[in-house]
Amino acid sequence: MKRTGKQTVYMQDPPVIYETAATVGVKEGKGPLAECFDVILEDDYYGEESWEKAESRLQKENAFLAMQKAGLTPDNINYILAGDLLNQCVGTHYGIRDFEIPFFGLYGACSTMAESISLAAMLIDGGFAEYTAALTSSHFCAAEKQFRYPLEYGGQRAPSAQWTVTGTGCAVLSNKGKDEKGPFVTHITTGKIVDMGITDANNMGAAMAPAAYDTIKTHFEDTGFSPQDYDLILTGDLGIVGSKILLDTMFESGYDMYSNHNDCGKMIFDIDKQDVHSGASGCGCMGSVFCGHIFKELKKGSLNNVLMVATGALMNTSIVQQGESIPSIAHAVRISTSREVNSHKQGG
Amino acid sequence: MKRTGKQTVYMQDPPVIYETAATVGVKEGKGPLAECFDVILEDDYYGEESWEKAESRLQKENAFLAMQKAGLTPDNINYILAGDLLNQCVGTHYGIRDFEIPFFGLYGACSTMAESISLAAMLIDGGFAEYTAALTSSHFCAAEKQFRYPLEYGGQRAPSAQWTVTGTGCAVLSNKGKDEKGPFVTHITTGKIVDMGITDANNMGAAMAPAAYDTIKTHFEDTGFSPQDYDLILTGDLGIVGSKILLDTMFESGYDMYSNHNDCGKMIFDIDKQDVHSGASGCGCMGSVFCGHIFKELKKGSLNNVLMVATGALMNTSIVQQGESIPSIAHAVRISTSREVNSHKQGG
Repeated sequence: MKRTGKQTVYMQDPPVIYETAATVGVKEGKGPLAECFDVILEDDYYGEESWEKAESRLQKENAFLAMQKAGLTPDNINYILAGDLLNQCVGTHYGIRDFEIPFFGLYGACSTMAESISLAAMLIDGGFAEYTAALTSSHFCAAEKQFRYPLEYGGQRAPSAQWTVTGTGCAVLSNKGKDEKGPFVTHITTGKIVDMGITDANNMGAAMAPAAYDTIKTHFEDTGFSPQDYDLILTGDLGIVGSKILLDTMFESGYDMYSNHNDCGKMIFDIDKQDVHSGASGCGCMGSVFCGHIFKELKKGSLNNVLMVATGALMNTSIVQQGESIPSIAHAVRISTSREVNSHKQGG
Repeated sequence: MKRTGKQTVYMQDPPVIYETAATVGVKEGKGPLAECFDVILEDDYYGEESWEKAESRLQKENAFLAMQKAGLTPDNINYILAGDLLNQCVGTHYGIRDFEIPFFGLYGACSTMAESISLAAMLIDGGFAEYTAALTSSHFCAAEKQFRYPLEYGGQRAPSAQWTVTGTGCAVLSNKGKDEKGPFVTHITTGKIVDMGITDANNMGAAMAPAAYDTIKTHFEDTGFSPQDYDLILTGDLGIVGSKILLDTMFESGYDMYSNHNDCGKMIFDIDKQDVHSGASGCGCMGSVFCGHIFKELKKGSLNNVLMVATGALMNTSIVQQGESIPSIAHAVRISTSREVNSHKQGG
């Protein structure tokens, strides 16, 4: 069994993240990470008649670009694992329907990028696939329409609210690397649902921070790694409010992550100048930040060990209106430029 | 690589379906399969204040029952793979939130039971888990409210419409069998999205039949199995309309499945007497029919080789209103009382 501790598995022959692509919307293209993205839209409608169709096109074009950059076609991909925030995940279904790639549909809200990379890596290391693709997206306008108010209404945003990213990320994983520096997926700590009773749908960061805490703490306990073993512990998307809760509670538990933590929701926008309150959110936030920015830093060697921790809030509008609190989840993936699976407790 | 043909994988050490549980609603409890189910509700509200909460409780109680029947607790389960039809899959999230089991959320519409069993089996055979649980549900009232009309409106149903099952199924898989008869998951043929341009959301059977055709034909081509190698080819849920399309198109392609095909959507209700038009549908249909009925027949040995083919329609209401057609998918799982992986082309 490739297990260590209670929630973590390690890869026997760590799959490589072979290539990625990231496409973002207009506002994201004016943010501090603009130079990292493969494509920046000139118009968030992306030539389509609706925001939902625009989101589908984001997934389609971007996934195709990731394959193209990898020198592959849809024929080469054994499985695509994808999902998004729209009801019944239609961003994905209409986006990938022409690819003819065997498909596992996922729903993990903003945890989808780590969920999809987790399963994409496990299918390869399990001996079931040579190439897999992990894909997700979100679209600000489609999300506002579905989860909050029609944009035309001009509803006021709470200070703790986060701004859904218009963007998409696609990662192609493989059992054979382009070079010896990977980056490799070495460990996966899959989250369980955590619900601390937060009922304010305008404060997702606070709802999701306890899930991130639970998964990161478990990852350290399961593997023997400590915060200092990472160049970067990357959450997405806790924003300003949730990040502070996470760092403080981790510190209280003996884990100091103040110096090497960042959150995709804090990175993609200039929070003050771009008026996004507590930061960014949406499946496409971690999707585009990881696939556009972090992957390149790993390839360059300016980052060598990253713990990717994607968090998702798992409610819908109707159940929150029924008074329910917000269950959350966080999935962690250890990504390293070394193929070595050198956890202290490996082989458990 | 454990692959054979273009879309099929085989298990090296086939995981066993260790135990199952099925719970259904009032109407399902009056149908021809009533005796197979573990629990039949007396009231579809199930003691809750809303249909969504009732669906969550269905998943919670039924998953717990499956673990209990298996002599296990949530602590023993390494991963739970689950999803449902509700927006953002809240049936699942609120259902399983107290279990503290590492969770991969899935969205496959009515294909979810086969999608979840596929991944549950691959995680075990890949060396990542000892016990996994595959879980899904649907609730007629919650689905009508979300996808069609409020029940109070009394909207008329089209002759080709299908009736969403109130029910849930949970299967616990393991790398160690209770006995030598399994049943075992030996092969998995994962579907790709197929969209033949059907736009009528009241005719899901016709939309999904081409996906079932594509996956079943590919399964035969990939493995060398023929329809005659199966006691039962079990689709869910094509209903009357979709089943006829599937059988006729398969026959035209040289595969005669007239005598050994059945569809969960035709089995759970007495179609004429229970006024369900083209039959049943919903994630919980294949969920409860497989976990309640088919699993027991496999344990008894009255069925020995079953091809489970769950089909899903992957649209939502807003995208269909925008004029889009209905993309569909079908996932096939070969389940056998023999551990042998004796396909003609194994090892490809």
